[in-house]
Amino acid sequence: MNNSFFSKFTPKEPKFFPLLKGIVEVIKSASYLMLEFVEKGNHANAADYYKKIKDEERKGDTLSNKIFDELNATFITPFDREDIHNLATKMDDVTDYINSAAKKVFLYNPKEMPAAAKDMVELIIEASAQIEKAVNELDVLKKSRKRVSDYCRELHLIENRADDVYEHFLIDLFENQKESIELIKKKEIMFELEKATDAAEGVGKIIKTIIVKYA
Amino acid sequence: MNNSFFSKFTPKEPKFFPLLKGIVEVIKSASYLMLEFVEKGNHANAADYYKKIKDEERKGDTLSNKIFDELNATFITPFDREDIHNLATKMDDVTDYINSAAKKVFLYNPKEMPAAAKDMVELIIEASAQIEKAVNELDVLKKSRKRVSDYCRELHLIENRADDVYEHFLIDLFENQKESIELIKKKEIMFELEKATDAAEGVGKIIKTIIVKYA
Amino acid sequence: MNNSFFSKFTPKEPKFFPLLKGIVEVIKSASYLMLEFVEKGNHANAADYYKKIKDEERKGDTLSNKIFDELNATFITPFDREDIHNLATKMDDVTDYINSAAKKVFLYNPKEMPAAAKDMVELIIEASAQIEKAVNELDVLKKSRKRVSDYCRELHLIENRADDVYEHFLIDLFENQKESIELIKKKEIMFELEKATDAAEGVGKIIKTIIVKYA
Repeated sequence: MNNSFFSKFTPKEPKFFPLLKGIVEVIKSASYLMLEFVEKGNHANAADYYKKIKDEERKGDTLSNKIFDELNATFITPFDREDIHNLATKMDDVTDYINSAAKKVFLYNPKEMPAAAKDMVELIIEASAQIEKAVNELDVLKKSRKRVSDYCRELHLIENRADDVYEHFLIDLFENQKESIELIKKKEIMFELEKATDAAEGVGKIIKTIIVKYA
Repeated sequence: MNNSFFSKFTPKEPKFFPLLKGIVEVIKSASYLMLEFVEKGNHANAADYYKKIKDEERKGDTLSNKIFDELNATFITPFDREDIHNLATKMDDVTDYINSAAKKVFLYNPKEMPAAAKDMVELIIEASAQIEKAVNELDVLKKSRKRVSDYCRELHLIENRADDVYEHFLIDLFENQKESIELIKKKEIMFELEKATDAAEGVGKIIKTIIVKYA
Repeated sequence: MNNSFFSKFTPKEPKFFPLLKGIVEVIKSASYLMLEFVEKGNHANAADYYKKIKDEERKGDTLSNKIFDELNATFITPFDREDIHNLATKMDDVTDYINSAAKKVFLYNPKEMPAAAKDMVELIIEASAQIEKAVNELDVLKKSRKRVSDYCRELHLIENRADDVYEHFLIDLFENQKESIELIKKKEIMFELEKATDAAEGVGKIIKTIIVKYA
């Protein structure tokens, strides 16, 4: 824990790290629930899936708020504060976008899921695995600098693949979906899912900034 | 006025407070005009209602700009500056969203108003009443801490009700509105109105932060 | 170069200025490509035009990133840093919106371009000419204060004209475009183009702030 990002406020401030790990768990739970929703969702169970994902999103909010309260109550430099704040906020964004996608599935009630939704959610799951690995090594950043940089690069590559999935989805949608209301539904659902992978890449960018500063 | 948020720059800087009250007036006028628009709007008078609401929005901009100019010209700590800036900006957002809704009614010319628009605008009016009460006590925050916190909580509850209204609106819309262009029109108009209640809740959050810091 | 915004870090830091001029070139290239795309685009060449505009957008990103790296590596006050950062970011936004518009033309494959697209792109080109003139005089701001202010006012007037174009486009679209999927396509393409003129006005606002502070 020496010379690391988190060592500065450890053991005085050991709380951020478990809270960030908690947010990782939330992202993972929400992603896996979303995968199930995309695979098994129907008009009968949609409200239920949405509720479960919303619960995760609220858990994430609670954890973020705890981090913000800790940050306000703790004496650390504003710079560190901002980095942790940004990291927690961006991690939370991943869950927020998953939640928005689930909400739109529930509210819009599309006749069928967009075919590309499964591919997209699998990319979100891949991304959350990279976020988990990166966050797990944040407290030994000096030693793990190279590895954590790799996870961040991986997040960038996943987002590129998500862009491809989204572009192909849109081309196909505008070519083949002739019912305009179904088109709107699918387009907006996929938009939120794609945003989740953007946010995951954003997490990687923030971690890279932290590496540059502290490792 | 002792030991309060505003006492720090009073009487040296007594201008922020009346300017903020001015923005409250703008929010109120815009909300009531929007209610009339929603109730009595038709193809003949839409341009007129939109113009009136746009005038309010411009008044709000002028007031915000005055606040920003004052902030730049005044010696106060950056922290205070940021709080007032954020508060004025977020208050202005409420009017901006009302204005966007009015603009879309005018430009899109829907066959009829979304039925839920009236409910939503009434929630905006309720929210602006809470904002008014909170802003009126900002200069005696030490004494009114409890009451102002209650107004902020109320803003949060109003936004929850607005979420419900919006969700039911969407479910109903996607189930029953078969003309897709009308669906787009109504959806976007209601989206802006819902955003206005989000912004009103945001005003509450900023005031809560101010309470924590100064009261 | 005396007493000016850029003289502070010149000749120690002469790099920002050429980098900003590079971003201007990118905006101009992207705008002219977009004009060609709007005038001559068809299903056969859309991918090609999009690719060329995307290349410009990437060039802009590279230049912005260089500016950010320089800013981080350079000792200048945080205030200056923020101004240059904001300026580069907002200039980049202009290209980003042009790129988004081009992307949507490519992905959505509309039956025809919105008729107003040409007018809008011509306004973007006018705006980039004003940005160019303003950036070219940033290093002699003391002497050119009046002229640069005029360019910024011009950017504001261009954005007003863009608003008018966009409003008339929307009124016409919702009145006459009966195919809802085509309506969605045209609406979203024009939305991105209009945002480009917003961003250009934003560039003017940032430059005005710089004038107030340094000239």
